[in-house]
Amino acid sequence: MNPQAQPQRYERGLAKLREIDGQAGEHVVSSLADIAPDFARYLIEFPFGDIYSRPGLDLRSREIAVVAALTAMGNAAPQLKVHLQAALNVGVTREEIVEVIMQMAVYAGFPAALNGLAAAREVFAAVD
Amino acid sequence: MNPQAQPQRYERGLAKLREIDGQAGEHVVSSLADIAPDFARYLIEFPFGDIYSRPGLDLRSREIAVVAALTAMGNAAPQLKVHLQAALNVGVTREEIVEVIMQMAVYAGFPAALNGLAAAREVFAAVD
Amino acid sequence: MNPQAQPQRYERGLAKLREIDGQAGEHVVSSLADIAPDFARYLIEFPFGDIYSRPGLDLRSREIAVVAALTAMGNAAPQLKVHLQAALNVGVTREEIVEVIMQMAVYAGFPAALNGLAAAREVFAAVD
Amino acid sequence: MNPQAQPQRYERGLAKLREIDGQAGEHVVSSLADIAPDFARYLIEFPFGDIYSRPGLDLRSREIAVVAALTAMGNAAPQLKVHLQAALNVGVTREEIVEVIMQMAVYAGFPAALNGLAAAREVFAAVD
Amino acid sequence: MNPQAQPQRYERGLAKLREIDGQAGEHVVSSLADIAPDFARYLIEFPFGDIYSRPGLDLRSREIAVVAALTAMGNAAPQLKVHLQAALNVGVTREEIVEVIMQMAVYAGFPAALNGLAAAREVFAAVD
Amino acid sequence: MNPQAQPQRYERGLAKLREIDGQAGEHVVSSLADIAPDFARYLIEFPFGDIYSRPGLDLRSREIAVVAALTAMGNAAPQLKVHLQAALNVGVTREEIVEVIMQMAVYAGFPAALNGLAAAREVFAAVD
Repeated sequence: MNPQAQPQRYERGLAKLREIDGQAGEHVVSSLADIAPDFARYLIEFPFGDIYSRPGLDLRSREIAVVAALTAMGNAAPQLKVHLQAALNVGVTREEIVEVIMQMAVYAGFPAALNGLAAAREVFAAVD
Repeated sequence: MNPQAQPQRYERGLAKLREIDGQAGEHVVSSLADIAPDFARYLIEFPFGDIYSRPGLDLRSREIAVVAALTAMGNAAPQLKVHLQAALNVGVTREEIVEVIMQMAVYAGFPAALNGLAAAREVFAAVD
Repeated sequence: MNPQAQPQRYERGLAKLREIDGQAGEHVVSSLADIAPDFARYLIEFPFGDIYSRPGLDLRSREIAVVAALTAMGNAAPQLKVHLQAALNVGVTREEIVEVIMQMAVYAGFPAALNGLAAAREVFAAVD
Repeated sequence: MNPQAQPQRYERGLAKLREIDGQAGEHVVSSLADIAPDFARYLIEFPFGDIYSRPGLDLRSREIAVVAALTAMGNAAPQLKVHLQAALNVGVTREEIVEVIMQMAVYAGFPAALNGLAAAREVFAAVD
Repeated sequence: MNPQAQPQRYERGLAKLREIDGQAGEHVVSSLADIAPDFARYLIEFPFGDIYSRPGLDLRSREIAVVAALTAMGNAAPQLKVHLQAALNVGVTREEIVEVIMQMAVYAGFPAALNGLAAAREVFAAVD
Repeated sequence: MNPQAQPQRYERGLAKLREIDGQAGEHVVSSLADIAPDFARYLIEFPFGDIYSRPGLDLRSREIAVVAALTAMGNAAPQLKVHLQAALNVGVTREEIVEVIMQMAVYAGFPAALNGLAAAREVFAAVD
């Protein structure tokens, strides 16, 4: 199986990845080229071609969900940073991002929220 | 220190708890009366009196964030059910809830999403 | 997008799901029909149509990996049971399964291993 | 290798297991007899014969540490209950246990603490 | 709401934070000033003003509980280091800290304990 | 108790540690000498002297299980790298390692798999 076999799904996913994650998303994909090129394709096809392309939930809500989950899990710092940028890209404001992260103190503890805020500070500073 | 000492914060939290979690929230609070009554007060004051009462993020987004986080963490089934009901209470649709949970397959794996969907089925059936 | 659009991938996944998970896998899929039918399709297409169908690792090793991971994570009991059965289905012996679970005591602690062994006892008893 | 080969370590562990966990500990060990008898031996030898037998930390502090950790992890309910009983056995008071669990709201979130309190209520009721 | 509205709780929390965490705690608070100043206040008020100020459990036991939990969770390295220092500040000895961390190998696996010991080595070296 | 008291178990563990983990394993042990020398002994005796020395599962399968579990848990990067090298040492191929890690996207999410692949790239590069 190769991308050509499902052009619609792969192309739709790639466009969605670019819309949401921007350069950071493309960097993730290209970094997989040497070690797991098929995984780069799956990443485009399933999360972006299938899930993010679904009409039932707006992208702002989807990124709020991801920032919340990755902050709460606390074991995926690089991906949290990609999605803090993605949240900004799709229109979540800095204030809203900070609110989501602070709320995670209630569900995953203060350390998770503190580490999420540190990641947000870093991403916001890179934008400025 | 007792609730009377900070009536505004406690009352605001209780009202917010009732608005969001409804009867399920009051049940959680009353179930703490015998073993940890102060914890019932903290639960009203900090999550609801402090966090959920903040103006910077709407309640729909807050419940989307909680459903996402508890689905991803996968170790808090009773609280996930309370917040699936809470999400419905503040206007998140069933379709949107299902979208949030499905999206967690990408960030926390298919088992987390499957268990989240099973919880949602249970909560939706209880509503019907 | 519907299954007909990618018949090869969907059919390959369904065959692989049946080969590995047997009736338990079909039950998971049918249980999703009411609440998230698209998720049933994704479950067939991505994990089974894409990942389990890859030639680079035998099914025995794949099920050893899953039993190890779900035992270590400790928050997905229903899926662990499905994969304990799946491990048996693809030729992992009971002794090997018990060895994998015991080894998880080293990496995720004795409680994770004890709960994994309890799940294995249940699955083995259902087989007998 | 069999227990006879290291009688001192095995016997010391068994005595320590009985001192700390009481009947619940012996039940865990006997429940392993059919599926993983060697694991029952490891459980006696390493956690109890090696770790709990060390002189550098009193048993009260050790059980406070375990109750904290299992409450925070939130994915090992049966073992948390065993150690809530064990904490009582070695002299931690109910009030102290409740304090430890409430404190976990800060580090692992309110759901973890709520589920820990529910487990404590169950264990305390069984004692009464 | 501002600190002035609940001076007793805020002041009590700040004093407790200084007593337990020392300079590291004040650094955490000041680092929040730019991105989430209200969260700095919550951190002082709830964990320190409410929880750590409770009389039912001594500070030594509270820090043993936190070191255990953060070692076991394994996803909050900066906070673990703050509390390794805090444990020393309230009178937990180095030997006791090492015992707590080693014990976590039993409940959360050897990697969690190894990473906890590495953090302890770092904190102890900074003290010397 | 000292190693001399159980020479067979300690020696068997040390030989197994060297066979599996090579220099990285010896480095872990020596790094414990200052802070927790007994823990170095436990690490040799229980995981390697007891578990890895058991005949019921081949070392290839054991390392596949560990790579899967540590990738899925996502909070033990140093130990994952040691076991990626160990997997190579006992004959798991690079392709098989990549397959195991990719499969974890299904059970623990894409971030866990991406971080696992990044660790693998680093270990493979160090070998070359």
